[in-house]
Amino acid sequence: FDYETPKTLVIPSIRVGCVFRFTQLLVVLYVVYVCVVQKAYQDTDSVISTVTTKVKGFAFTNTSDMGPHLWDVAEYVIPPQGDHSFFVLTNMVVTPEQTQSRCPELPNPSTTCVDDCDCIEGHSDPRGNIQTGLCENYSTTVKTCEVLSWCPHEVDTKLPRALMSAAENFTVLIKNSITYPKFRNILPHINSSYLKRCEFNRTSDPDCPIFRLKHIVSEAGEDFQDMAGGILGILIDWSCDLDWWAKKCYPKYSFRRLDNKHPVNNLAPGYNFFVKYYKKSDGEETRMLIKAYGIRFNVIAFGTAGKFGIVPTIVNLGAALSFLSLVPVVTDWFMLTCMKKRDFYSKQK
Amino acid sequence: FDYETPKTLVIPSIRVGCVFRFTQLLVVLYVVYVCVVQKAYQDTDSVISTVTTKVKGFAFTNTSDMGPHLWDVAEYVIPPQGDHSFFVLTNMVVTPEQTQSRCPELPNPSTTCVDDCDCIEGHSDPRGNIQTGLCENYSTTVKTCEVLSWCPHEVDTKLPRALMSAAENFTVLIKNSITYPKFRNILPHINSSYLKRCEFNRTSDPDCPIFRLKHIVSEAGEDFQDMAGGILGILIDWSCDLDWWAKKCYPKYSFRRLDNKHPVNNLAPGYNFFVKYYKKSDGEETRMLIKAYGIRFNVIAFGTAGKFGIVPTIVNLGAALSFLSLVPVVTDWFMLTCMKKRDFYSKQK
Amino acid sequence: FDYETPKTLVIPSIRVGCVFRFTQLLVVLYVVYVCVVQKAYQDTDSVISTVTTKVKGFAFTNTSDMGPHLWDVAEYVIPPQGDHSFFVLTNMVVTPEQTQSRCPELPNPSTTCVDDCDCIEGHSDPRGNIQTGLCENYSTTVKTCEVLSWCPHEVDTKLPRALMSAAENFTVLIKNSITYPKFRNILPHINSSYLKRCEFNRTSDPDCPIFRLKHIVSEAGEDFQDMAGGILGILIDWSCDLDWWAKKCYPKYSFRRLDNKHPVNNLAPGYNFFVKYYKKSDGEETRMLIKAYGIRFNVIAFGTAGKFGIVPTIVNLGAALSFLSLVPVVTDWFMLTCMKKRDFYSKQK
Repeated sequence: FDYETPKTLVIPSIRVGCVFRFTQLLVVLYVVYVCVVQKAYQDTDSVISTVTTKVKGFAFTNTSDMGPHLWDVAEYVIPPQGDHSFFVLTNMVVTPEQTQSRCPELPNPSTTCVDDCDCIEGHSDPRGNIQTGLCENYSTTVKTCEVLSWCPHEVDTKLPRALMSAAENFTVLIKNSITYPKFRNILPHINSSYLKRCEFNRTSDPDCPIFRLKHIVSEAGEDFQDMAGGILGILIDWSCDLDWWAKKCYPKYSFRRLDNKHPVNNLAPGYNFFVKYYKKSDGEETRMLIKAYGIRFNVIAFGTAGKFGIVPTIVNLGAALSFLSLVPVVTDWFMLTCMKKRDFYSKQK
Repeated sequence: FDYETPKTLVIPSIRVGCVFRFTQLLVVLYVVYVCVVQKAYQDTDSVISTVTTKVKGFAFTNTSDMGPHLWDVAEYVIPPQGDHSFFVLTNMVVTPEQTQSRCPELPNPSTTCVDDCDCIEGHSDPRGNIQTGLCENYSTTVKTCEVLSWCPHEVDTKLPRALMSAAENFTVLIKNSITYPKFRNILPHINSSYLKRCEFNRTSDPDCPIFRLKHIVSEAGEDFQDMAGGILGILIDWSCDLDWWAKKCYPKYSFRRLDNKHPVNNLAPGYNFFVKYYKKSDGEETRMLIKAYGIRFNVIAFGTAGKFGIVPTIVNLGAALSFLSLVPVVTDWFMLTCMKKRDFYSKQK
Repeated sequence: FDYETPKTLVIPSIRVGCVFRFTQLLVVLYVVYVCVVQKAYQDTDSVISTVTTKVKGFAFTNTSDMGPHLWDVAEYVIPPQGDHSFFVLTNMVVTPEQTQSRCPELPNPSTTCVDDCDCIEGHSDPRGNIQTGLCENYSTTVKTCEVLSWCPHEVDTKLPRALMSAAENFTVLIKNSITYPKFRNILPHINSSYLKRCEFNRTSDPDCPIFRLKHIVSEAGEDFQDMAGGILGILIDWSCDLDWWAKKCYPKYSFRRLDNKHPVNNLAPGYNFFVKYYKKSDGEETRMLIKAYGIRFNVIAFGTAGKFGIVPTIVNLGAALSFLSLVPVVTDWFMLTCMKKRDFYSKQK
């Protein structure tokens, strides 16, 4: 229980004292920075969130194939369940009345034929269809091998551009709640009458959770009409301070294109297949194959929540304290090298 | 290679010694707390999980519209794939036999008309339908503008409450596996015969991964019958200790309503649109529009896994050691201010 | 502003000096290890990612039930939207032409009956169907209670094994982009002509994002043909160094079975129900119930991104510095216990 303490010299030099205090001040400033600005006294945790989305809008098209057609949400948003990821149809190639049957292949160098000898029964062509061994007329000028497949084949060469250009004016309501109860992206001061008429705008309505698709795409630096297909991220960045004196979580929205814009290293951008099944009156199954082009929207919420924790506080203070213990080393070095009386000090020590 | 060491004074005072040892003890206690309780010697990592769900149950309804109808899983769980998020139908408004055609709008102040002059051809009404310019009889008393749309329109004013009240007795089996192999929420001691008959109960069966929907909703503080629609979170909190002497991961279940209960700042709670497409014998496409009300269940797994790591160990020990270096400062201050012989000590130092 | 510094003794002993320098060296080595190898100077953040998948391939089956049938992506991948999780059909039990009607139950001890007295009207059998109170012929030899249900019932006793064995040669293109713009699993040096012909191989093509399903399953230690159903994880581990002198994120792929292989504590592995709805010419709704067996693939991306941060740098250096302050303690202890002149040193101190 004896206490051992180092003998100390008191050096009455203002210059040395200044150096000593100044380096101490540096450490103290760092501690203040870490505590106040970085909130290093907090334990942090990732925010876990759930998202529901509801798209609203309508589009009217009048094409030669389909005639006048009014598109509502139940048709152009796929899947309609309102998950964190949804696909908005902008265009499509419809192949109606497909049945499992036999028909001549689409003409290309490997499928054209002159007579039945060019087609091998049971052989599968590059698209995976099974050849029957016959050579049939595809059109009046071309003969191709007959295959067993979903017939007729899809012809996707002539794609009418941006059929549903009105889609850019659709709006989407995003509801996002996070693991910390009571925090949602629909902030408490928002009431339902405001919700019914508002639209997100970074300056005038930064808290409105209803977004116009055109706005999302243009903030991501893209043009809705040019972007036939792709993936757009709606990023919600939560920063939460759960200490009792703060108790706040704010969402910040940003938008970014997630897939590669340049087609050089991109394959098959932005389309998906959908199928509607029907049964004919004679019981045969028919399907309507829809190659749907569109933009997939992904809502991604992330962020960290911080709360006062004793361990991070001590670790950060401790690390700073270590630097305080460096202060005498620095001052000693200053004293013993830069001062005039350094030999005297050196001897005394 | 000379070694410089401070000269020390040994102070044979029990009181000073006590203060010195006591402050040292505080630091040591903190180290023990951090190491044993907080496991600060561990590197931590977020748990990443995959979830599959399987709902079981049946509901029998007998309404005037549909007649006796038995609902099975393939009908009331949407989507049926058993993802981490599923929607259990509790009620619905069905609009069968919709086709793309012309019909008078639903009557409301902006759509009622007296004659064709009140309707503008090509104008779109607030619901997005395109007016044809005619004024037609909606009923014997009301005339409204005719529109081009999916006809007939959906009438969702009279909603039969909680059609499928039996849904509260459905059960859901949740399979949750995490990134650390060998750990699943179906614990190793659970065999399939127990799985076939068990049901989650916080006290008697805390490890059973089969949940009754009513139980989930009531633990979240809600009533299944009152909750026409909403989002319910099934939270699985994993805490994993992957050190070789522990090797355990336990899931803890909790339930919480994720959307806002109060309709004040809530829009469009708990419904979704689903569509079934049919083809008439004459080839015309018909659809059945289903506005489905229900509860979406979201399984959210999260947690941290910890394993011994040299860096966090040293950082935490180092931070505590810094405080040890504070001990002499405290003791010196005590010695030089509180003791009777302080002048003597001061001089000696 | 006076500066207090401890008086020091200089001990001209090489052995003590060595011990002092050696323990200092240990701490410095640790600092180098932590900074260079562990990159402890970095702030870390979880990677958040979005995934799209596209399965390619075809399968030809020729069963007595269905006749020759060519399966394309739109049929065997469920859902077809190309989300992070997709289900590849390997087998199925089809129950066509189900309607809401009355039919005798499947025979089992609790449903067989002799006459109408054995069946209670309104009673629901274990499968949830409502008994009508009649006892009907199920076959020529067995009588069972009639129920109100989707009729006819599904008979899933005889399951044709691995109908779609060709599924193992399907390939899947995985597109994965992370929250840090410009980083995707399709690396910049990959062009679309390489993408069109490449296939993932750990040694020859480790960067190709196109995977053969058979390869995925076999790397997970399973056999595709034996694995009737289950969940397979495709794990993408991102490690990102976002400092300006590094700026690189590389994905690493690994595969693992996520559900429990052993049926002991596994229920209902690998199947799902899907329904196709039809309408008969008389307007009655019919459905085709499909119990689909298959493998669900889950793409899970995770990882941490690190970037230089002042706080972690100081904390780690500080912790190491604390150990430097331990060095004199160790050396003093060595000097005062192990050296011959320890009494002399002790006195001098």
